[in-house]
Amino acid sequence: MTTTATATKQFISADQLLEHWQGHRNLTRRVIESFPEKELFEFSVGGMRPFAKLATELLSIAGPGLKGIVEGKMDAFDDETAAPKTKEELLAKWDSETEVINLYFNQISQERFQETFNLFGQYEFPVYQNILYFIDNEIHHRGQGYTYLRALGIVPPFFWERF
Amino acid sequence: MTTTATATKQFISADQLLEHWQGHRNLTRRVIESFPEKELFEFSVGGMRPFAKLATELLSIAGPGLKGIVEGKMDAFDDETAAPKTKEELLAKWDSETEVINLYFNQISQERFQETFNLFGQYEFPVYQNILYFIDNEIHHRGQGYTYLRALGIVPPFFWERF
Repeated sequence: MTTTATATKQFISADQLLEHWQGHRNLTRRVIESFPEKELFEFSVGGMRPFAKLATELLSIAGPGLKGIVEGKMDAFDDETAAPKTKEELLAKWDSETEVINLYFNQISQERFQETFNLFGQYEFPVYQNILYFIDNEIHHRGQGYTYLRALGIVPPFFWERF
Repeated sequence: MTTTATATKQFISADQLLEHWQGHRNLTRRVIESFPEKELFEFSVGGMRPFAKLATELLSIAGPGLKGIVEGKMDAFDDETAAPKTKEELLAKWDSETEVINLYFNQISQERFQETFNLFGQYEFPVYQNILYFIDNEIHHRGQGYTYLRALGIVPPFFWERF
């Protein structure tokens, strides 16, 4: 692990980033809820994955990724094992991961955010970039979910409503 | 303007955030380029706006928003005046805004990121939240653009390719 240049002018603190992320996760939860059960698992546009599959990917990244960073383990990414089979199961898993994310995120030090880590044994970047990737990837896939909802004639939740 | 609690554990520096944002902007530029001219301005899914309209919204937020923060001006948001009419015009505007963003972002101090500002005379939040909103909103709309491209049978650029 190498340490990159130490930051000077702070943009955001760790606490603020975590709150921001959990706000996004609240919104993604609302998007999951907005889908009818069948469409959540089956509907998509242009041959893409249904939203349940995208949400399961997100669950397989956030908690397990942070756990890997904290414990220094580079287990491969896995979104097949224990994939939720119903909307209820998916929402329950979403909620239980909230605490997992808080638990591990808070164990990462300011210095560690700047160290490189080989996430899932595959993505070698500074830890802060890995974590931004988790969040960005969620916003990206949720934007696709919004499009699915609109294509289904369902009004999605407000983008700015997070808490 | 009120100052919120001073941050302690740093997550990311201002320089790193700016680089991260410009990386996202490079990817959004590639998404604009991926659309055929006609579809860029006309195609959409589920009654949503075409991608040119979404990209124009992004242009009307980032540079003007930062300028407003730096100069303390709360002019209303405007994505109608001077909206690009061709793909070439849109890409040229995208490129010229890159420098505008760098110019104004770099004038914001660490303390200022924590102060609230009434963005566009309408959104009263800490400056760091306003800026994260600019980026998140770009990722959100670009995710919708990815769905449009897939619906058109066009393979979008890799999500992780930023520079």
